[in-house]
Amino acid sequence: MTILNEIKSPGDVRVLPSEDLPALAAELREEIIGVTAENGGHLASSLGVVELTIALLREFEPPADKIVWDVGHQTYAWKLLTGRRERFATLRRHGGLSGFPRRDESDCDAFGTGHSSTSISAALGFAKARDITGGSGYAAAVIGDGSMSAGMAYEALNHAGAAKTNLIVVLNDNEMFISKNVGAMSKYLNRLRTASAYTRGKRDVEAFLRSLPLIGETMSNAARKAKNTLKYILLPGVLFEEMGFTYIGPIDGHDIDALTDVFAQAKKQPGPVLIHAVTRKGMGYWPAMRKPDVFHGVGPFDRETGKPRQKEGPPTYTEVFGETLCRLGQEDQSIVAVTAAMGNGTGLSQFGLMYPRRFFDVGIAEQHAVTFAAGLALAGLKPVVSMYSTFYQRAYDQVLHDACLQNARVVFAVDRAGLVGEDGATHHGIFDIALFRAIPNLTVMAPKDENELRRMLRAAFILPNPSVLRYPRGRGRGVKPDEDCQPLPVGKAELMRRGADAVLISFGPLVYRCMEAAASLAERGVDAGVLNLRFLNPTDRDAVLTEARRTGRVVTVEDHALAGGVGSAVLEIIADAGLTGVRVKRLGYADYVAHGPIDALQEENGLGVDAVVSAVLSLLSFRAPVPAGLPA
Amino acid sequence: MTILNEIKSPGDVRVLPSEDLPALAAELREEIIGVTAENGGHLASSLGVVELTIALLREFEPPADKIVWDVGHQTYAWKLLTGRRERFATLRRHGGLSGFPRRDESDCDAFGTGHSSTSISAALGFAKARDITGGSGYAAAVIGDGSMSAGMAYEALNHAGAAKTNLIVVLNDNEMFISKNVGAMSKYLNRLRTASAYTRGKRDVEAFLRSLPLIGETMSNAARKAKNTLKYILLPGVLFEEMGFTYIGPIDGHDIDALTDVFAQAKKQPGPVLIHAVTRKGMGYWPAMRKPDVFHGVGPFDRETGKPRQKEGPPTYTEVFGETLCRLGQEDQSIVAVTAAMGNGTGLSQFGLMYPRRFFDVGIAEQHAVTFAAGLALAGLKPVVSMYSTFYQRAYDQVLHDACLQNARVVFAVDRAGLVGEDGATHHGIFDIALFRAIPNLTVMAPKDENELRRMLRAAFILPNPSVLRYPRGRGRGVKPDEDCQPLPVGKAELMRRGADAVLISFGPLVYRCMEAAASLAERGVDAGVLNLRFLNPTDRDAVLTEARRTGRVVTVEDHALAGGVGSAVLEIIADAGLTGVRVKRLGYADYVAHGPIDALQEENGLGVDAVVSAVLSLLSFRAPVPAGLPA
Repeated sequence: MTILNEIKSPGDVRVLPSEDLPALAAELREEIIGVTAENGGHLASSLGVVELTIALLREFEPPADKIVWDVGHQTYAWKLLTGRRERFATLRRHGGLSGFPRRDESDCDAFGTGHSSTSISAALGFAKARDITGGSGYAAAVIGDGSMSAGMAYEALNHAGAAKTNLIVVLNDNEMFISKNVGAMSKYLNRLRTASAYTRGKRDVEAFLRSLPLIGETMSNAARKAKNTLKYILLPGVLFEEMGFTYIGPIDGHDIDALTDVFAQAKKQPGPVLIHAVTRKGMGYWPAMRKPDVFHGVGPFDRETGKPRQKEGPPTYTEVFGETLCRLGQEDQSIVAVTAAMGNGTGLSQFGLMYPRRFFDVGIAEQHAVTFAAGLALAGLKPVVSMYSTFYQRAYDQVLHDACLQNARVVFAVDRAGLVGEDGATHHGIFDIALFRAIPNLTVMAPKDENELRRMLRAAFILPNPSVLRYPRGRGRGVKPDEDCQPLPVGKAELMRRGADAVLISFGPLVYRCMEAAASLAERGVDAGVLNLRFLNPTDRDAVLTEARRTGRVVTVEDHALAGGVGSAVLEIIADAGLTGVRVKRLGYADYVAHGPIDALQEENGLGVDAVVSAVLSLLSFRAPVPAGLPA
Repeated sequence: MTILNEIKSPGDVRVLPSEDLPALAAELREEIIGVTAENGGHLASSLGVVELTIALLREFEPPADKIVWDVGHQTYAWKLLTGRRERFATLRRHGGLSGFPRRDESDCDAFGTGHSSTSISAALGFAKARDITGGSGYAAAVIGDGSMSAGMAYEALNHAGAAKTNLIVVLNDNEMFISKNVGAMSKYLNRLRTASAYTRGKRDVEAFLRSLPLIGETMSNAARKAKNTLKYILLPGVLFEEMGFTYIGPIDGHDIDALTDVFAQAKKQPGPVLIHAVTRKGMGYWPAMRKPDVFHGVGPFDRETGKPRQKEGPPTYTEVFGETLCRLGQEDQSIVAVTAAMGNGTGLSQFGLMYPRRFFDVGIAEQHAVTFAAGLALAGLKPVVSMYSTFYQRAYDQVLHDACLQNARVVFAVDRAGLVGEDGATHHGIFDIALFRAIPNLTVMAPKDENELRRMLRAAFILPNPSVLRYPRGRGRGVKPDEDCQPLPVGKAELMRRGADAVLISFGPLVYRCMEAAASLAERGVDAGVLNLRFLNPTDRDAVLTEARRTGRVVTVEDHALAGGVGSAVLEIIADAGLTGVRVKRLGYADYVAHGPIDALQEENGLGVDAVVSAVLSLLSFRAPVPAGLPA
């Protein structure tokens, strides 16, 4: 690390002799692979942009120049070169560096990201602000080809292309994103990438030009072919050009000299410029090059072999969901599955292999995914949309209007609900309950374990209305499947433990933490019950009220934000019933949650067993202040 | 109406002699203008698609064929021709026909719409479902050029273009949407429209072809110009073709024969087809043709002159917002405004005229609008984004991640918050509080009147965090502006009336309804207070608790859904303080709300003065059940 050791700030990259750059790239890869092998992380994409990162820092000067990294999980080299070398071993660790750009980490991180396709919008904001204030400096977005499938990127191109502001968009085309790329844009990029092959078509073009019938007449097949050839020669990047951008490319994204030349050229070009750089995911680490999807986001692995170091354990909720859906898909041919570039992540890949005609990965396009599914549902099919909790934040209007308002019976599988751990604040799914339970005819379910997940999924498909099934990241409890998997009765809670002194109400696997807390309380002579709520909307009001009446003390425990979550639902039920005198303590997240191991984060946020125990004890010791005007 | 009178179902349109079609079109216009003059409505866009609607019904057979109308406010002729002639006079009236397609109105309405850009997704859902089930029938989306600026439309094109499913997209290009169109796509469509002019460039092309230097050499300006000319001749609709669609057009969208020919052709064409039809908004009614933006959505008007029949009254909240922003924009050059095709609707037009460099209408692109604003904010400017409440449902993730999570100080003006009246369920802004108050560092404000709106807007710009300012559609109370408009102290509620028996807590102009209810209660000898909450997050906990303690009875009154709204916030505050024995009754919307006059709808949903009075009385007569285990 003789070169990397000398880089204290981005300025040091600029003054390096260019013959040192390949060695710097190698050292960066070494460091990235080493730390990711220990901590896990987004390896493949970070390795793919090492040269691109160096080239950016050769030509641009952050923080004066604003570089916005789309998604941001590819910024490991960026972090290493912008003053975070010493903390880099803490990457994604509790209290350590984030796996994404963050403004509070470095002033070189112009814009915090996490979800895809925001970079062009943000960079255009910087560019316009510069123009308005008469400032200087460049604004650039670095966006992957996968992120280009999201409508938001198009919205930004549409604005930028007409705005004539100086703006640089670097399209980092690695021919795939999280999994194999989909969609027309992807095919288009593929044609551009292979456009160099068209040079050999030069002769065809000449022949074509000689024989051109001009307008109106029918073209022969040969002429049509030649026309297409001509198109890529005459009009490279025509799609981007038509959108108002100057297109430069495709260029080799691993050639630092070529990149810096192009960046220098782009800086001089007025108006919006799109640079099409082709990179390879996982570049420089063979296991990641071979399986870039596996090494997209990866846990700790053995550096020599690339093999995961994960411990054995029960299947994840995601896997249980995927397996169950495959089984249901066999029984019922009308079940179809839709995801938005999360086929692997949501456990739908197997379903896709078994029923390719009934599986749709629409790319990073959550809005479209949901409305498309609503169309499928209204045509009589039974679609399940599976996405991560936070990505539903991108499709709330579609869930509300296109599915629920017209009662399209879509099942929304909400994976990664609750804390997700190392990916941190942008990926913690802690707002979905508040969002979804506001929708009148949307049933929200959360299974306490694998079996309930199976039974709820069955229930979802026979409901007369749309539904949400939320479950967390990570392994289940290893509960054996019921022999006879029956749908759970919708709207019925489960009293797992009856108590006289207090009741713990939870939703999802935290029910088991409540059981632990109840056991611990029992040792202290406190008799606390546990209610597994299972469903919201319809919520089991009777069960809530019965336990609230019996005990007078309720503690709600949820892997979710406090405002508007399960605790609020419980308060609403108690108030609506006119039940007074019940003390309710709500446990959940009062603020954004940082990254780290899920258990530690929950502990830190008052959701550990001890915190639950304390909450009950505090209610027991508490003498409620009675309002002066109390009628009773 | 000799022809229209005979049309009982869409089949009757198909069998009409074609010489009758122009007369049918004239009768449809007559009917549409007549009813809209009485009821108000979306006149200009409905007049623009009269011929298109007839042609669709000549070639397609709903309900077997699925026609999805984007946005759907242009479906008046469609309604008249698909069995709703007799009810058409009830359009947009309480209990009458909706102003949008609704599946519960007719089986010819394949998909309910309201917000833009969903049609291609939904139609693709129908198309794929047909393919999966081995069914027959065509699926078509009719989408305006304005709707093409939304990312969602692009996401759907991207999927459809690669999917090779038979699908017809009719691009209804009227060169504008709600107001003048913006963006690169709009410019592109303009070039396509005028492409016929390129035929005169034939000679240029020939000259160009003779002189073509082929690849690699620098082109002269003349050659470059010729290249561009060539592009539109060789490659009509290249942008759509590159996206995988067969492009047909542009064609005259008022020529029924031409349209039916093209539809017949499209039905035979395998794979996705895009038909580019050019129409004129307001066609056939001179006032609407002259001012299509005014007649986009219009109140009752005089049919002869086109003059609005609206009564005089105080300015709307929207106008007060717009005026105040203009004033603030003069004082502070760093204030910038962003909207998403709602410049007129949100009162920003004047700001745009006064400060064109600081005003951005990004088209129908809510996601981009918000993230772009976040970029502006992080670059040191003070952006205000102004959109309608329901359109923020399209940008929740962006508000959360791009603005709030990194504390970008964007002011989100949420216009049309609460019920909007005649536009109905898709446009009632009754979910925003639940969505926004879940976000940790987002301050939510609602002014009770014009002065508070002014003072809150001032407060928003000096807050150290992002904020939401929500206010309803319609006129204010005519409150005179304060001479000296000072920012309201954030987080402080206003006790408008002190009461001993109960307190009414509200948020926004309904505070005045609470005052009426309190006056009415006083006449019955009940002493009810009124608390104008003003702010959530920070909420004035002390004020809430003081009044709750004093009275023991709280009624919350909000122009918003019950789940997760202001009432829930009040319940949370009371529970978190450990205050028991307080009876809380929450008034708000328990379900979707239909269309009709706002007052009538609120009355119907238990938000009228009488309902508020009854709620207080019910609490007074109520003897609270005390739980058995109550500690106190």
